[in-house]
Order: sequence, then structure tokens, then C-alpha cells
Amino acid sequence: MNSPSKTPTDRSRLRRMYERGGYDASTIYPILDATPMCTVAYVIDGKPYATPTIQWREGDHVYWHGSSASRMLKKSSGHQVCLTVAITDGFVMARSGMHHSINYRSAMLFGEAHKVEDADEKEAKMKTFVDGLWPGRWDMLRPVTSQELKATCILGMKIDEAASKVRTGPPADDEEDYTLPIWAGVLPVRSEFLAPVADPRNLEGVELPDHLRDFTFG
Amino acid sequence: MNSPSKTPTDRSRLRRMYERGGYDASTIYPILDATPMCTVAYVIDGKPYATPTIQWREGDHVYWHGSSASRMLKKSSGHQVCLTVAITDGFVMARSGMHHSINYRSAMLFGEAHKVEDADEKEAKMKTFVDGLWPGRWDMLRPVTSQELKATCILGMKIDEAASKVRTGPPADDEEDYTLPIWAGVLPVRSEFLAPVADPRNLEGVELPDHLRDFTFG
Repeated sequence: MNSPSKTPTDRSRLRRMYERGGYDASTIYPILDATPMCTVAYVIDGKPYATPTIQWREGDHVYWHGSSASRMLKKSSGHQVCLTVAITDGFVMARSGMHHSINYRSAMLFGEAHKVEDADEKEAKMKTFVDGLWPGRWDMLRPVTSQELKATCILGMKIDEAASKVRTGPPADDEEDYTLPIWAGVLPVRSEFLAPVADPRNLEGVELPDHLRDFTFG
Repeated sequence: MNSPSKTPTDRSRLRRMYERGGYDASTIYPILDATPMCTVAYVIDGKPYATPTIQWREGDHVYWHGSSASRMLKKSSGHQVCLTVAITDGFVMARSGMHHSINYRSAMLFGEAHKVEDADEKEAKMKTFVDGLWPGRWDMLRPVTSQELKATCILGMKIDEAASKVRTGPPADDEEDYTLPIWAGVLPVRSEFLAPVADPRNLEGVELPDHLRDFTFG
């Protein structure tokens, strides 16, 4: 992923609808940065597993974390994983059932997961994660303890290979179907953030921090 | 998945935070029915892959589809897959970095994928898929052709095993941290549908169908 023109291998090359595909950092990073939600797929005893989790990117590495006791994290460390991000932008409603589709931005990353072992590095990664979503929040929080760091497993991977797939725009119907009196178009969808809900146990007078005003991803 | 009290196996049992877990149809089906977006994980040559796609449920089976030329569909048919659905409901902001979390509803399904081979059955499945999202739409569309059915691959799987995981509510901080003057709470998030965008090539006078008024999932 260092070179934006890296040639895709057999593993990541999109076989279908290659006109939708992109392999370079300039298309893949913005998709990763547009949502923290992701799915990490891994193999245990030859069988596939996939766990929804949160990712954050630092350069050409991507990270996710959880409890040190997590089976998913223990079993995927040191092994190949596939991390996918998919953002739905709309439902594409065509004149034929078969041309119904989705407008989306997705990225599929391949690499070997490794554990972040060093306590200071773990703390720095957690700060990057929290501040990446809510700038300045980390320093407002109760400092992390060494026990918490031990109980937390952070996995990372260098993005060895990646592919993105994006669809935008109106339906693509068969040319002869455009004469049919059928409503076609796109139903756009997006993530909407509602007003923050304060913890009932917040102390009186504690104000909503700036990083929660007009919050958005990326 | 026939019995709501089916005992989870080693494969699907949640090792962590089991209090968040559920294995029965009454908790898993509503999560599947709440969004069509999913990720299907599969194994090729021992390596994990995961593809974002759309699912729909019929009883204790779940289906997804794509081009007959799709590598993902060809390689996963007849093999074990893991289909996950994850709906993000909010970002949980705690008083410690380590207690930050997500409110979510997720389901992880395990089973063997099989191809729907019969043309009539394929057409019926496609109708269920389209009408499941937009009731009555299928019969408004240009009828499907046998070539389209051949070019479409529908995979299904009996839900052999499944696990759900759900988190709701405010942050769960360490008891002593509730005395700290830190704003904690939840930033709720949801999918918002915007006004439908008509295809510029719609015929004049074609009206927005009822199934697009106040659209929602499930």
C-alpha cells in the first residue's frame, strides 16, 4: 500500500465488475476513514469466522482492539485476516428486479494480524483511536491504568493488499427497459447522529464537550 | 435454529461478555430482519475472505445473491460460511478510554452455503427479496428473463448455529470514576433514509410508488 499504483494480486483483484474496483491508497484510505465500523474475518480450524468491530488507521496500518481474553483476538493474532468496511449510500431501484443494486463504498484489506505488545505503544494507540473520533477527548479522561492496558488486546496489520469497490449513481437498466412506465431511482441512506444522551450519573454542571458538537466521522 | 432454546456449541458460544449473548431465534431473527446489509466470510486456500452483500431471511434460512461469475459465490457454495449482521446504535463514551464502547445489535450465523439451482425457485426467491424490502414492487417490474436467472447466483444456508450480541444503555464505568467531572453518555446513531431521487430517465408522469413512502427496514 505504499505505492498508489501497486498492482493487485490474484487475491485482491476484483473478478466481477472491475470497473467499480480500486486498489490504491487514495481510494481505500478515505473509505476506511469514513467509518470506524468494520468486520474482521479469520480462520479457526479451517472454518470462517467474522467479527464486527471498530478499526482505526495510522498510515498504512489498521488497528482494532478488545479484551485480552477474546477468542477472536487470540486466534487471529499471527494469522491472515480480511478486514472489510462497507458504507451503504443508497438503494438502487431499477426497472428489472435483477438490476436492483446498492450504492456503496467498500474496502477489503488483507494482511497478517499482530499484537501490539508494548504498554506505552498500546496507550498511544488507544489515544489515537479515541482522539481520532473525538479530538481532545483522551486528555479529558481518567488516565488509563497498567491493569487496563494488560486487559486490552490491540491487534494491527500492515495493509499488504487491499481492494475497494464503489457504486454510485442511478440504476443501470437494459436500454429497451427505459421506455417502461416504472418508477426507478435511488433511495439514499446515511448514518444520522442524534442528540447526545448524557449519562444520568454525570455530575451536575458537567458540560457537553466541544468534540460532541456537530460530530461526524473522519 | 428450530428450537429457541438450542444449546450453543463451542463454535458459536460467546466466550467474552456472555451476558450480552443470545442464541435463540427470537433474538437473532429480529436482528437479521432489521437490516439487509451483511458480510459473508468464507475460506479460499486456507485464507479468510469477507464480502459485504445483502441478505434476506425465509424461516430458518438466509439467502444472498450476485453474479453467477462471482468468485465469492462460486468459492463459497458447498462450503462453510459465516454471515454477520451488525447494526450500530450508538457510541458509548465513558470516563475512561478503556470503557468506551458501542451500542449495537449483531448476529453471527454459521452454516454451509448451497446454490439455489431451480429457475422457478430462483425467481421466487428474488421476488421475496425485492418484495421484502418494497412490498408489491416485484409485480410492477419488467418480468425477469431466463437469461437473467442464469446469470444470477443465489446462495442460501440453513442457519445451523447462530449467536447474537447486543449492547444497550449508558457507559459502564468503574464505580470510583463516577465522581469525576467528565461528560459521559451515548451518541446515538441510526440509518436515515433521504428523499428518493428519481432516475432522470424516468418517463414523464411516472409517480413515486407507495412502497417508497416512509420506507423503513423490516
